[in-house]
Amino acid sequence: MSIKVYLNEDEIPREWYNIAADLPSPMQPPLGPDGKPVTPEMLMPVFPMNLIEQEVSQERWIKIPEEILQILYRWRPSPLHRAKYLEDYLGTPAKIYYKNESVSPSGSHKTNTSVAQAWYNKQFGIKKITTETGAGQWGSALAFACSLMGIECKVFMVRISFDQKPFRKIMMRVWGANCVSSPSNETNAGREILAKFPDTPGSLGIAISEAVEQAVTDPTGKTRYSLGSVLNHVLLHQTIIGLEAKKQLAKIGEKKVDVVIACAGGGSNFAGLAFPFVQDKINGAKIEIIPVEPSSCPTMTKGPYVYDHGDTARMTPLLPMHSLGHDFVPPPIHAGGLRYHGMAPLVSQTINEGLVTPRAIHQNECYEAAVIFAKTEGIICAPETSHAIAAVIQEAKKAKEEGKEKVILFNMSGHGLMDLKGYENYFDGKLQDYELPEEEIRKSLRAIEGLPLPKILKTGKW
Amino acid sequence: MSIKVYLNEDEIPREWYNIAADLPSPMQPPLGPDGKPVTPEMLMPVFPMNLIEQEVSQERWIKIPEEILQILYRWRPSPLHRAKYLEDYLGTPAKIYYKNESVSPSGSHKTNTSVAQAWYNKQFGIKKITTETGAGQWGSALAFACSLMGIECKVFMVRISFDQKPFRKIMMRVWGANCVSSPSNETNAGREILAKFPDTPGSLGIAISEAVEQAVTDPTGKTRYSLGSVLNHVLLHQTIIGLEAKKQLAKIGEKKVDVVIACAGGGSNFAGLAFPFVQDKINGAKIEIIPVEPSSCPTMTKGPYVYDHGDTARMTPLLPMHSLGHDFVPPPIHAGGLRYHGMAPLVSQTINEGLVTPRAIHQNECYEAAVIFAKTEGIICAPETSHAIAAVIQEAKKAKEEGKEKVILFNMSGHGLMDLKGYENYFDGKLQDYELPEEEIRKSLRAIEGLPLPKILKTGKW
Repeated sequence: MSIKVYLNEDEIPREWYNIAADLPSPMQPPLGPDGKPVTPEMLMPVFPMNLIEQEVSQERWIKIPEEILQILYRWRPSPLHRAKYLEDYLGTPAKIYYKNESVSPSGSHKTNTSVAQAWYNKQFGIKKITTETGAGQWGSALAFACSLMGIECKVFMVRISFDQKPFRKIMMRVWGANCVSSPSNETNAGREILAKFPDTPGSLGIAISEAVEQAVTDPTGKTRYSLGSVLNHVLLHQTIIGLEAKKQLAKIGEKKVDVVIACAGGGSNFAGLAFPFVQDKINGAKIEIIPVEPSSCPTMTKGPYVYDHGDTARMTPLLPMHSLGHDFVPPPIHAGGLRYHGMAPLVSQTINEGLVTPRAIHQNECYEAAVIFAKTEGIICAPETSHAIAAVIQEAKKAKEEGKEKVILFNMSGHGLMDLKGYENYFDGKLQDYELPEEEIRKSLRAIEGLPLPKILKTGKW
Repeated sequence: MSIKVYLNEDEIPREWYNIAADLPSPMQPPLGPDGKPVTPEMLMPVFPMNLIEQEVSQERWIKIPEEILQILYRWRPSPLHRAKYLEDYLGTPAKIYYKNESVSPSGSHKTNTSVAQAWYNKQFGIKKITTETGAGQWGSALAFACSLMGIECKVFMVRISFDQKPFRKIMMRVWGANCVSSPSNETNAGREILAKFPDTPGSLGIAISEAVEQAVTDPTGKTRYSLGSVLNHVLLHQTIIGLEAKKQLAKIGEKKVDVVIACAGGGSNFAGLAFPFVQDKINGAKIEIIPVEPSSCPTMTKGPYVYDHGDTARMTPLLPMHSLGHDFVPPPIHAGGLRYHGMAPLVSQTINEGLVTPRAIHQNECYEAAVIFAKTEGIICAPETSHAIAAVIQEAKKAKEEGKEKVILFNMSGHGLMDLKGYENYFDGKLQDYELPEEEIRKSLRAIEGLPLPKILKTGKW
């Protein structure tokens, strides 16, 4: 029995899968502050036109340029592992498979889109890309891509992480990126915040504002902004994960997957693995598809489907998505990548269409699962990834109770070597499980009162 | 052109290569304090008999047990990359290939032997393995292996690293190992040192003494000690690297390698890649084989070939090897894995036979090479590995000057994600290049005055 499946260079997928072409209901457009749809032209100061075209595309299959494939091929196809040691430990009849995205140079799936985005920007004549980063996972993935592409990279890193997590910062520096603490003195947004709150720890919202401002105000017009999740084109680039997984499963004669699982913060690693299987489900296959989030930030399981801003500072258009409100400040759990108030519009729509079934899990159960995984499969996963593993263990136990030989597939989205502190806190019993009270969510949702509502909600589907 | 080569499961090497069978001169035995050869039986309290048999074996090929192959197969065969982006950057006619050992769960080649050693110990009925670790690379690799095998693992970690580098320690904890600061209160050796020098930063020598003492004094007789480099059986387990590389090169039709390069601290990653090519050289092939060390710890390039202890505390037998003397304290460079006073007896003998040609390089040149590598090939390498890359760049430039299309192969022995501080110090201009004065070496070598000399030296071959 094979416990690992590779693909040869000629078997790597040549097209990304665009789920927008297959969704039962059409996607609803992002809206401007006036409630009118945002046109592609309005996004031009922020993103290059070739990526805007992907953002609004309705084509089912989008060709991956050969040059991008060559770069992805440095670490892709990522291996598909059979988690037989975890299966044995659990005594489950289920067969568990996982895509190992931790083999990328920055340690997670993020490089799948950073490489594509940097390449499209370069094709469009862009010389510099700005972005924000929280703990540094996305910033380092973009720094890596820009380094290979010879594009300047500027990262605004949330101050508290900048000060407390020096290592991701050094990674960005090695790859030649300029990473500054946000709020900074380099932008109006940053200066205003610093004047008012000199001791602010910073936030993703502020960092986004700074990165967008620096991109749109560059007088040369050769700077654009880049986002690491949430948007349609970002999710598109990640679908190579699920497309590879399908080919790998076919290669070993595994004909049917019963359960597909991934963690979801902004939604990109989940969409990357799951969307090609959502397509099968739309076409009639019986598959359970589960995005997993922390109970402390229950965007999908407790947040309504609304129009909301992508950032706290309300710089971005209104997006149709599950949201806890753009003012929401999640408790300080270790899975930094899952502490986002919203959810990618495409993922949100699959939830509303009943195609995927979100689940929330507490962080202590997640770390317990991560330690089991490390001791059986040998890989120390990222705190975000631990949420997927916790759900896998729940499903494997269920299969045991039911006596069913289910096939479970999940996304090992990244390693945890840069985030080991959370494990120590878990061992030392210092981790708290936060159950978010309904009233706090209602309070936070006041921020979106009066904003337009997306259609699905109006038709009562949610 | 393929930039990455995998092997299928059925192509993975099934035997390790034992160079002892092919060396022109026979190996000389380790000696006891009385100057008499150490017999296998004398090693029995320290190592299990199956590993002692490997240590003294003269068989050319040693079968890899199927169970070990199954574990190695979790991350092996490691990919062979063509460094075409580095080639383009250097404008060299040389073709550069590297084995990427960073894909292992602990991030380096060390797991190749930790898995084998844990398995053989388990076969021999051993319940607990003790070891020492400096920065934690080896300790985490052994913790990983013991975790998979269900063996207890005890790691004595040099105090200064234990206090300053918390992350490797957490990795070991995740894999269930018990990692304590050395000197500890758990052994006579530790207690004696603590009584005399309560503020000692610890040393590898002390940690080895503690680990050996705890192994040999366990009243149940079910504890043994494990070493991560230097010894014959450790190097043997690493030869899977070079054997895979040969198959991978053959797979893409690359018939001849001109230059083989790896860094060398204790010698195991170098031996692992190089020994299968040394065999070709013994059989007449023209290959330049280069182990690379830091100029600040020039064991191979400035240390004589002598009989010396493997540890500072003189607990180990005398080994025939290049050494700077067991009292030698190298300057505090970042490549912790290359700060060892001796060199594996097998590697030392290949140097004396003229089969390999060591080279010493300063750390600033190494970091410069590492940054070039990160920006072209995309991988942030370990500080140890940077020594190999610096030599590769030297050789690629030489090939350019000579206008020769040489084939260069090197070992990307590990990633640097747990050792990023060194990069920051390099960028900030804080790294010093230490050229070790001859008189300091002579002083340090006084420690071995009066000890027996190995034969090759006596016959004037060195």
